[in-house]
Amino acid sequence: MDNIIDITKISSGIEDEIKKSIKGCIIRPSIALIEIGDNKISKMYSNTIEDASNRVGIYFRHYEYEDNVPELTIINKIKELNNDEYVNGIVVSLPLPERYNEKRILNTIVNSKDINGVTDINIGRLISGRKTIATCISSGIMNIFEHYGVELDGKEVTVVCDKKSSIRSLVSILINSGATVTICTQNTKDIKKYTLESDIVISSINIKGIITGDMIKEGTIVIDAGISIDKDKIYGDIDYDTVVEKAKLITPKVDGVNTIIISMLLSNTLLCYNSKK
Amino acid sequence: MDNIIDITKISSGIEDEIKKSIKGCIIRPSIALIEIGDNKISKMYSNTIEDASNRVGIYFRHYEYEDNVPELTIINKIKELNNDEYVNGIVVSLPLPERYNEKRILNTIVNSKDINGVTDINIGRLISGRKTIATCISSGIMNIFEHYGVELDGKEVTVVCDKKSSIRSLVSILINSGATVTICTQNTKDIKKYTLESDIVISSINIKGIITGDMIKEGTIVIDAGISIDKDKIYGDIDYDTVVEKAKLITPKVDGVNTIIISMLLSNTLLCYNSKK
Repeated sequence: MDNIIDITKISSGIEDEIKKSIKGCIIRPSIALIEIGDNKISKMYSNTIEDASNRVGIYFRHYEYEDNVPELTIINKIKELNNDEYVNGIVVSLPLPERYNEKRILNTIVNSKDINGVTDINIGRLISGRKTIATCISSGIMNIFEHYGVELDGKEVTVVCDKKSSIRSLVSILINSGATVTICTQNTKDIKKYTLESDIVISSINIKGIITGDMIKEGTIVIDAGISIDKDKIYGDIDYDTVVEKAKLITPKVDGVNTIIISMLLSNTLLCYNSKK
Repeated sequence: MDNIIDITKISSGIEDEIKKSIKGCIIRPSIALIEIGDNKISKMYSNTIEDASNRVGIYFRHYEYEDNVPELTIINKIKELNNDEYVNGIVVSLPLPERYNEKRILNTIVNSKDINGVTDINIGRLISGRKTIATCISSGIMNIFEHYGVELDGKEVTVVCDKKSSIRSLVSILINSGATVTICTQNTKDIKKYTLESDIVISSINIKGIITGDMIKEGTIVIDAGISIDKDKIYGDIDYDTVVEKAKLITPKVDGVNTIIISMLLSNTLLCYNSKK
């Protein structure tokens, strides 16, 4: 259907630009990825980054740890990578096993290599409206809007996300662009009340099919940024079959915004590489 | 009327606690305030902080500059205060004259003396849900809710604020407390649509009387965190006379939440003083 957002096309365009830039580099830009334990979503994320890096010519280093590795080992590895002049971007694959202090680990990443925009200082800068690296999910979604000429000024947007979600920085970007934004979480009694009134619905709460066709009005732009696993199969937040017919624009089934998130990560790596020069 | 929030009482309670703590200090906690130019709101803010500091026994240092002072002089003064062991909190009185880079100046304040919670790293920490100093406006409003036993979980809240507002950190606290939050700005076409559906309305957009009685339903909790000057008189965002009769709880006329914001500033100064020990 022609209302399905062609994320592959947008991502290919971004990747082509990156490829061209990297062809001119003697020293290749490089990503270091840290992965702990054996989580399916984390593994999928790592593999996708590795594949994408290889595609565009970014040098990919993979640091895999068993679930029982001491937190200090991880912290020290990140510090080492912070100081390694041949590493331009550092990513920690999430979710981490529960007993690790995720915030502490993420905030060890030096600002100038935080290609995923997850450190407190990068989030604070973004909220303050300063130029910085935004979380890839935020810049990925903004990239989609830009590509399709979606005007945000005066629009009503509902963001459905976890209370603790990293998508909070997207909210700031949307507001700065002139949108009125409602944030619904697992504590919201009637999510439908908000989604039904919205021009744009973005869901990132990681609950399989939570947004159903009866919850949106005809002509809504629907962005699926959720991911969950049920019986070894991957699902998004959108109940695709009931929503697709009413949406003016919608992210593709299954893959949602994942492809563009990875493209943003590559793009940020090049940004960090170039700003070092 | 008994629906008017007794901010003086809440603030007195906080100040009494601070006074008691300071009585036991050999070296007094101290605030350094920087003021540039001759802005009425900025001057009022400075005077209120000076008075409040004197009341509780905090040592107050005032650095006043003419409108034409070079930005570097301010930056260097803040750096000097950062390193001064007898300064526990640093505040820059806002708004600054337009030609100054406000973000640059504020972000020169060292994190451990940022009693107003305005640095990027403090904002980022707050958004990430980490323990840190919240902007005084946020903690002040949360203090009111706590005092009156206002349960936020599942509640619908509308925050009316400037696109660039520092109240953004309040939004994070509200969401973490389980509220569904809509953020309206100057770009929102129909603010009334949202306020009319809300259990709580918080306005901080600094437009005189923008929230009128027809915009809220019976039983709403209304918080006025706006301030503007018209013909030398100070106004809030709430059109008091039409709103007061419908509100379940409402901040006092004219003064809004200002008194409690200052109490939070004093309280944060003591916090920074104690965490230094």
